[in-house]
Amino acid sequence: MSDDVRRPDAALVALDWGTTTFRAWLLDPEGRVLEQARTSDGTLRCSEGTDDARERAAAFERTFLRLVGPWLRQHPAAPVLCAGMAGSNHGWAEAGYLDVPADLGDLAGRLTTVATTGRAVHLVPGLRVTGPDPDVMRGEEVQLVGALDAPEPVTTVVLPGTHSKWVRLDGRRVTGFSTAMTGELYGLLMRDSILARLSDGGPGAASPDGRGSGAFVRGLEVEAARGDERGLPALLFTARTLVMAGDLRPDEVADYVSGLLVGAEVRHALRSAGPPGEALGGVAVCGSGSTAPRYRLALERAGVPVRTVDEDAAARGLWRVALDAGLVARTAPPILEDQP
Amino acid sequence: MSDDVRRPDAALVALDWGTTTFRAWLLDPEGRVLEQARTSDGTLRCSEGTDDARERAAAFERTFLRLVGPWLRQHPAAPVLCAGMAGSNHGWAEAGYLDVPADLGDLAGRLTTVATTGRAVHLVPGLRVTGPDPDVMRGEEVQLVGALDAPEPVTTVVLPGTHSKWVRLDGRRVTGFSTAMTGELYGLLMRDSILARLSDGGPGAASPDGRGSGAFVRGLEVEAARGDERGLPALLFTARTLVMAGDLRPDEVADYVSGLLVGAEVRHALRSAGPPGEALGGVAVCGSGSTAPRYRLALERAGVPVRTVDEDAAARGLWRVALDAGLVARTAPPILEDQP
Repeated sequence: MSDDVRRPDAALVALDWGTTTFRAWLLDPEGRVLEQARTSDGTLRCSEGTDDARERAAAFERTFLRLVGPWLRQHPAAPVLCAGMAGSNHGWAEAGYLDVPADLGDLAGRLTTVATTGRAVHLVPGLRVTGPDPDVMRGEEVQLVGALDAPEPVTTVVLPGTHSKWVRLDGRRVTGFSTAMTGELYGLLMRDSILARLSDGGPGAASPDGRGSGAFVRGLEVEAARGDERGLPALLFTARTLVMAGDLRPDEVADYVSGLLVGAEVRHALRSAGPPGEALGGVAVCGSGSTAPRYRLALERAGVPVRTVDEDAAARGLWRVALDAGLVARTAPPILEDQP
Repeated sequence: MSDDVRRPDAALVALDWGTTTFRAWLLDPEGRVLEQARTSDGTLRCSEGTDDARERAAAFERTFLRLVGPWLRQHPAAPVLCAGMAGSNHGWAEAGYLDVPADLGDLAGRLTTVATTGRAVHLVPGLRVTGPDPDVMRGEEVQLVGALDAPEPVTTVVLPGTHSKWVRLDGRRVTGFSTAMTGELYGLLMRDSILARLSDGGPGAASPDGRGSGAFVRGLEVEAARGDERGLPALLFTARTLVMAGDLRPDEVADYVSGLLVGAEVRHALRSAGPPGEALGGVAVCGSGSTAPRYRLALERAGVPVRTVDEDAAARGLWRVALDAGLVARTAPPILEDQP
């Protein structure tokens, strides 16, 4: 922003408070990011050691004020909107769920407000699937809102991560979703298993983007060719036997295992979605870092074209929910001064 | 054994020295167990901290003498036969492999001898599959020999464990095998994952025999019905969503997860074996404790009749290899004195 434009006052403090990560954005009156923060003060850290709801709420409030207190003091009129596990029954306050099928436009009408000494905090509800295949999400629903804030129609959004979500959409209506604990399995295997002892590195050893990695692609190919026959518990062990046979280098183990796991997740998600090429429609992968490109590659190799949405979709989604809820003004223009 | 029969001198010190467990048996001239020991002095403990082969061999020898020194002094003529990871390239000495297809009768002709200050130790080779699906075993080969020491013909032996083995046989000839890291996955999940935090217990929480457990059977059924469609990373997460939906108790999580994992392993192993009901023939599950009954139940529910072989198959197998190698006399009778 050039010097002759005075930076406008912030309009919203937006939080995505997950189990292991706290993310915060300070947004201007047009929803643009002014400042952001990311720490490891996840909700687990606030809730551990106490089963008492009031003690827990106090721990959340202390952490909240420590992390965003300066923003609150500098921007006394900015409301606070928070998504993620802070709204769970082991969080700051239980923020409930919308039952699927659910319209994402309804999130704004179901906020739960926590009164703090610092500022009222509005919690976004999660989404829940009931019935024989129950499932839940908290935090991903605002990423979804942000991911849909684009011209191209999307019928499936993939949110890779510790617990990957595959979400089916009809416009802005979530018609179903399911979760795979692929990222957590990868972390467990590459930190503590016999495969970790083979590998040259830990969970971070997989190459940064996955695209340049022959071992990642090899994992995808082995899973595609043999997954149905041999099953994942047997395929994972091939990382060890291939290294022992001199057919896989220790520094390739992490990428190969990643290929097996991402391959299994993507292949089954496509199968669950229906006949090949029919059910998926437009697919968006929402994420950043090394993970999203891996999912993109796996999908493209299965013949599914993909667009990638950056992880700041959460900030855009929180902004949209704040607009829908009337927490911020829909048409507030940037305050421009000293214009010629 | 009654008082009027003097106990014969021991004929063999038999060891199964695995990664995490050291097992030893003192066998009489008919191969019966006189004494046994089991400790957690696995080979990992002897090999950690050194890459030097001589230092490592010295660590193995010290542990060996500490654990079975009294037997060696009491039975100065008893030879020592050892199977397991002690024969790996990170073990006491590299004992090589027989390539599959391999006759189990050939193990005895391929022993590797380590000269120690205490007693010569004969190491049993492992088995190895080469080609596109390489695999290895060390220690299980003597369990196989023991498991085949029975009247009923067996064409498949299942050795459940941290790394389960499925072995195909034609008489005493091993025609192929494969490994699934099911037990290790279970341990990782129930010790460190989000599922462990849900559960009332750790890896040991699964009910002792698996048979009485509705949650174990439920895991088998869910995996059988949905495994091909949804895949293991998604099915595992259902343990969490079912608990959150009030449809699975926290104390059932371990059994349910065990059912999903054992179900996936067994179902894929049966599929790999060929058309239903054709390829498997006589199946033996070799193991003890809570694991073998789970595999037996999973196989029986899939229509495959099973017999169970106890874990002391390793001792019987080591005895048979010692006989074949001429380390012990084939016809040595028990020494009976003071008979009427």
